Amino acid sequence: MPVGTLGTVKSMSPDELKNDTQAQIILGNTYHLYLRPGDQLIKKAGGLHGFINWDRPILTDSGGFQVMSLAGLRKITREGVRFQSHIDGSYHMFTPEKVIEIENNLGADIIMSFDECPPFPATRDYVAKSLKMTLEWAKRGKNAHHNTEKQALFGIIQGGIYEDLRKESAEALMDMDFPGYSIGGLAVGEPKEDMFRLTEFLNPILPANKPRYLMGVGTPGDLLVNIRNGVDMFDCVMPTRNARKGSIFTRNGKMIIKAARYKEDFRPIDEECTCYACRNFSRAYIRHLIGMQEILGMRLTTIHSLHFYLELSQLARQAIIDDRYEEFFHKYYPLVDQIME
Amino acid sequence: MPVGTLGTVKSMSPDELKNDTQAQIILGNTYHLYLRPGDQLIKKAGGLHGFINWDRPILTDSGGFQVMSLAGLRKITREGVRFQSHIDGSYHMFTPEKVIEIENNLGADIIMSFDECPPFPATRDYVAKSLKMTLEWAKRGKNAHHNTEKQALFGIIQGGIYEDLRKESAEALMDMDFPGYSIGGLAVGEPKEDMFRLTEFLNPILPANKPRYLMGVGTPGDLLVNIRNGVDMFDCVMPTRNARKGSIFTRNGKMIIKAARYKEDFRPIDEECTCYACRNFSRAYIRHLIGMQEILGMRLTTIHSLHFYLELSQLARQAIIDDRYEEFFHKYYPLVDQIME
Repeated sequence: MPVGTLGTVKSMSPDELKNDTQAQIILGNTYHLYLRPGDQLIKKAGGLHGFINWDRPILTDSGGFQVMSLAGLRKITREGVRFQSHIDGSYHMFTPEKVIEIENNLGADIIMSFDECPPFPATRDYVAKSLKMTLEWAKRGKNAHHNTEKQALFGIIQGGIYEDLRKESAEALMDMDFPGYSIGGLAVGEPKEDMFRLTEFLNPILPANKPRYLMGVGTPGDLLVNIRNGVDMFDCVMPTRNARKGSIFTRNGKMIIKAARYKEDFRPIDEECTCYACRNFSRAYIRHLIGMQEILGMRLTTIHSLHFYLELSQLARQAIIDDRYEEFFHKYYPLVDQIME
Repeated sequence: MPVGTLGTVKSMSPDELKNDTQAQIILGNTYHLYLRPGDQLIKKAGGLHGFINWDRPILTDSGGFQVMSLAGLRKITREGVRFQSHIDGSYHMFTPEKVIEIENNLGADIIMSFDECPPFPATRDYVAKSLKMTLEWAKRGKNAHHNTEKQALFGIIQGGIYEDLRKESAEALMDMDFPGYSIGGLAVGEPKEDMFRLTEFLNPILPANKPRYLMGVGTPGDLLVNIRNGVDMFDCVMPTRNARKGSIFTRNGKMIIKAARYKEDFRPIDEECTCYACRNFSRAYIRHLIGMQEILGMRLTTIHSLHFYLELSQLARQAIIDDRYEEFFHKYYPLVDQIME
C-alpha cells in the first residue's frame, strides 16, 4: 500500500496511482488526518474517498505508532493516551472508542484498533503489561465499531520480540474474531532477524483465510521474506520518501540517481520497465531534475519506485498461485536491496 | 508560454502541459540551462526537445535579463558580459556569438539575440548607449547564427521608457530583418502605464506580418491590454510561481486558497472550468494540500492557472478573429486581476 499520510500519496495524483503504478489500495494516517484537516471536515466531504477523490480501497492506521513517537508529549493510561499535538502543542485524548469514531468519520475500508506500540528495546515485563492493555483496547474498539458492513476492523498483534507474548496476543485477538490481523510493533529498530523470526513464528498460528498485514515494512527484500512467512499486506513510506531524495528502487537494486556516472546516461532508469518515467525520460534528465529539486524529478522517481514495488508484489502473488515462490524468491532476493553499480 | 526555466515547467509533466493546459510552446532559460545541466549535455541528449521529452515548440531567451539581475557579479563591455555564476561564483563570458552557440546547442525553435536589459530607473543617456551596444550585439548574433532553417532568431527591442529610443531600436532591428521581434526591458519595475504606453507606441511601427513577443509579462489583465496593443506572445512565471504558493488565477480574479472561507468549500476552484483540478477536486481539499505544502496541491493549482491563462489567450485570439476584441476586453479586464471574495 502506498502511504498517503495527509490524504495524498506524496507527489502523486489519484490517476497516476491507478494508471501508472497500479495501486489497488492506499493508506491514510489517522493521527495526522485527525489533526489536519480534521476528521469532521473529511466526514462532511463524504469521507476520505470523497475528500481526496480516490474510489479504490483505503486503510487507516490506529495512530498508535505516531503517538508512540511523541515520547515526552504523551501520557498513557488504561483509559487511553493523552498527548500534545506535534504541530501546536494542543492537548488531545485518544481512547480506543475515540479512535474508532475518528476512523468511522474518515470512512476507510479497512481500519485499525487503537494499540500501544512499545518501543525497541523494551523489557519483557513492560511489553507484557502493554500487551494486556492493547488487548483490552482491541475489545473496547470492537464494541465501539458499528459500521462493520463497510469498514473491516483489524486487531493489531503486539508482543515485542517475545514469541510467547506474540502467541498470546494473536490468540486473544483470534478469539475476538477480527476480519483481519495486523502485526504491529515491528520495524521499530529491532534487528531484521527478529522481524523475520516473528513473522515466521506467527505464520502457522494465524488463520489461513484472513488477511495478515505487517505494518510499516519495508525494503523490497523485507517484503519478499515476509511474504514467504505468510504476510499479505504491507505499507511503507520508503518507495515514496526515498524516491523524492533520488534513491530509486529497481529490480536490480537501489539506483542513487545523483551519482556522477548517470550524468550523461541517456537510458531510462530500467530499460525493461514499462512505467511512465521509464517510457519517456532518461537517467540524465531525472538526475538533473533531482539535483535541481524539481518536482517533476520527485514525481518520476516516485512513479518508478511505486510501480516497481507493486509489480514485485504482483509477481510474488503470481508465483504463489503457480506454486513456485521459492524459485521466485531466490531470483529476486539477492538483487533488490543492493546498491546498483 | 509557460516558463520551464531549468527544463521543466515547475511541477508539470509534458503530458499534463499538452493535455491539461493545452500549452503549444514553452520557454527555457538560456542562462540557467547553460549553467545546469549545461548546453553541451543537452546537445548530446538531442537538444532540449529530446532531453525534456517535449515535441512541441520551445523558445529560449537570451540570458540578458538574468545577467542584468547579477548586479555586482558582472561586468559589461562591448565585447560582451563577464559574470560570476549565482551558483558557485565561477567566471563566465557571454558574448552575442557565445549566446547563439549555446542556443544552437539547446536547439529551441525560437531563440533570442543577446541583449543588455537596462534596469529601471535608468538615465536616458545610459539607455541610449546601452541600446547602441544591444543593436551591435543583435547584428553579431545574427551573423553567428547559421541554423536559420530550424531556429528562428528574434531581435530584442530595448530603449527603456523612451519612445524615441524604442522607435530607433525597432527600426534598426527591422532593417536587419528578423523573423520576429521581442520587446525587452519592460516589466522590470516601471509603472504599468509606461509598459502599456510603449506597447501601444510600438504597435504601428512593427510589421503586421511578424510575431511580437513581450518578454516577462504578466498578469491576465496585462496580457489583455498588451494584446490590444498588438502583442502576440508572452511568457511569465506568475501562473506557475503564484500557484505553488496558493494564489490561483481564475476568470473571476485571484483566489487565495488559504483563506479560511474555503475550509469547508467543497466546490471546485471554478465551477465552469474543465481542467483536471476543477473536474476532480474541491477548494477544501486543495486548500488542505497547499497548507500542508503537498506537491499535489502545487500541481493542481498550477494546472488550473496555466489552463486559465492559455484558455484566456485562446479566447482573445478568437475574439480578434471574430473582430470583437473590444467587447471581449471589456468583459474580462475588470474581472481577472481582482482578488476573489
